[in-house]
Amino acid sequence: MITLQRNEFFEELSSCADRVREVLNRQDYHSRFMPDDLRNSVMMYTLSGGKRLRPAILLWCCGAVGGDPSVALPAAAAVELFHTWTLVHDDIIDRDDRRRGGSTVHEHFHQVAKERHPELSDQEQRHYGVSVAVLAGDVQHGWSISLMTELARKNGIDPAVTLHLIEQLDNKVINLLVSGELLDIQYCQRPLEELSVDDIENMLWKKTSVLYRFCVEAGALIGLNRVDPQNEQVHALVEFSSLCGTAFQLQDDILGVIGNSERTGKPVGNDIREGKRTTLVHYAYADATEEERAVLSGTMGNAEATPQQIERVVEIIQRYDGVERTAERARRYIERARKYLEELPDTKYRALLAAWADYLISRDV
Amino acid sequence: MITLQRNEFFEELSSCADRVREVLNRQDYHSRFMPDDLRNSVMMYTLSGGKRLRPAILLWCCGAVGGDPSVALPAAAAVELFHTWTLVHDDIIDRDDRRRGGSTVHEHFHQVAKERHPELSDQEQRHYGVSVAVLAGDVQHGWSISLMTELARKNGIDPAVTLHLIEQLDNKVINLLVSGELLDIQYCQRPLEELSVDDIENMLWKKTSVLYRFCVEAGALIGLNRVDPQNEQVHALVEFSSLCGTAFQLQDDILGVIGNSERTGKPVGNDIREGKRTTLVHYAYADATEEERAVLSGTMGNAEATPQQIERVVEIIQRYDGVERTAERARRYIERARKYLEELPDTKYRALLAAWADYLISRDV
Repeated sequence: MITLQRNEFFEELSSCADRVREVLNRQDYHSRFMPDDLRNSVMMYTLSGGKRLRPAILLWCCGAVGGDPSVALPAAAAVELFHTWTLVHDDIIDRDDRRRGGSTVHEHFHQVAKERHPELSDQEQRHYGVSVAVLAGDVQHGWSISLMTELARKNGIDPAVTLHLIEQLDNKVINLLVSGELLDIQYCQRPLEELSVDDIENMLWKKTSVLYRFCVEAGALIGLNRVDPQNEQVHALVEFSSLCGTAFQLQDDILGVIGNSERTGKPVGNDIREGKRTTLVHYAYADATEEERAVLSGTMGNAEATPQQIERVVEIIQRYDGVERTAERARRYIERARKYLEELPDTKYRALLAAWADYLISRDV
Repeated sequence: MITLQRNEFFEELSSCADRVREVLNRQDYHSRFMPDDLRNSVMMYTLSGGKRLRPAILLWCCGAVGGDPSVALPAAAAVELFHTWTLVHDDIIDRDDRRRGGSTVHEHFHQVAKERHPELSDQEQRHYGVSVAVLAGDVQHGWSISLMTELARKNGIDPAVTLHLIEQLDNKVINLLVSGELLDIQYCQRPLEELSVDDIENMLWKKTSVLYRFCVEAGALIGLNRVDPQNEQVHALVEFSSLCGTAFQLQDDILGVIGNSERTGKPVGNDIREGKRTTLVHYAYADATEEERAVLSGTMGNAEATPQQIERVVEIIQRYDGVERTAERARRYIERARKYLEELPDTKYRALLAAWADYLISRDV
């Protein structure tokens, strides 16, 4: 069986990232975006790194079913952009000021307005930032779809495959993703005890797995160059990605509570201040004393919570093994996911997908 | 030459509106949108009327080049939705509370949050409204593109035509439209005297004509069922729509100042309070006295302007014939536009397009 050195995985991941960046850096795209504030806002997260986990599995799934990954490059860049616009809009909704170690788009342009128009009120300056971020996300959404059309227009992929993927992305994926985001907001307004682990994981599945699932379906159908979602390999990859996506999000929730903020680029305690409903909190809440429950309910969702209050919540989560139990769930998802890879031929791409699954729950960023 | 009775035009327009409404009312679409707040927000403007001017010319252009308009229905519904999501996001950006005689999406869900969670602060309730509206627009954008794919997947249109139109919509149209919207915001922050009529009309062209131009191109290419943008009839229709779009927006600016708010569904003086840069104000400013200029500069963009102050601005605009001069410009655009229709065969559809052009500048809503 083909196996990989750990550094081979990272080298391949970084090579995918470079190829996607190259696509997104093409000048004929950039010249589309005017005025300057729009161009800069559209490119902010796009060129600022990120792990590019989505483009990577798309390209590797294309290879895993026997296709040429380079043909799938426009789709790989498209899913990265699709993910990006959802981040830009989510950051507005979650009122997050920091991402990837820098300002979020709306916060950056809040600061731009402050410098450019010191005479305006802070509220006006802030509104300018939100306005630019709404438009930047809209443009990235459009750019993403326009890249998908290149599959047929430039790379020889069957137009029926291309249209099928566009329809999937702008119908199924977007509706589930947005529904997950809205549930996330609504859950934050509901009492902690009302939500089950299933509620939370269903919301996580919508927020994350759905786009991962699209990536593998896109990679596989482009590799096969025919619309064949009932194909056994496609089916195995879809099941694989669905399980991986939830595990990814569970790991994200863990990093949101005990992650190193210098590594993750997000402030400590953000998820707690926002009141994010996670399985970590759920497990702790279920077993906590009345007094501890009061601390959890009082701090979760309190935007003004002090570092001491945040620390107290983290202590309670740790006391009831919220982190370990969530990590254990994530591990079990990845184990089940990896079994599906056995349906695929033994290639370097399959080995990369297995390493990718392991990485999802071992990463610290 | 085929001519129409005035009521024939309105009957045909209303029949287009009904057919588009029927498409948008299909239950298989509605069941995609969850939870309830999302479904309701997505459907708010979609089913609330509107003039459906865009779907109408798309269908008529399809007929004008000899095609069967009913084949183009998914595209007609798609452009209406595309227009709708830009309205939903623009209303957030312009902080408009009213549209089409009802609440805007973000304001409606601000009120929903107020009723559902009276314990939250007004700021939190308002943020919920904005969040729902951002997501609703995103979903409508996706829905619009997914409808476009039906041209090939269900209606027998060449996939190359379908992909070309999707690429046009999510690349050219969106980039120009968003650039127009951002210029509009930035212009409101600049002194009145800095902007020329050309600056203003270029911004209007981006905000409005670009989507009209897409509608005629889409209708014509679907009617021809081939990608042939150099075709003389397509070219004539594109020029026609580009001129009509600017005239439409000039009429909108007139109604924004002297329109009957019960008819337009928008509060009197909104555009003035927002400081919208229009040719009406431009003409008045150019000829006004120092004292009148101070009134214009002081009131335009003052969100707290009193009805008396608004009235004073309207008086100054009227004194320097801002309305008449803008109306005259709009009339000249429509005259030039109608000449292009002579390139098309003499059909009922051509007569409808001519009546449509006249309607753009005679309408009071």
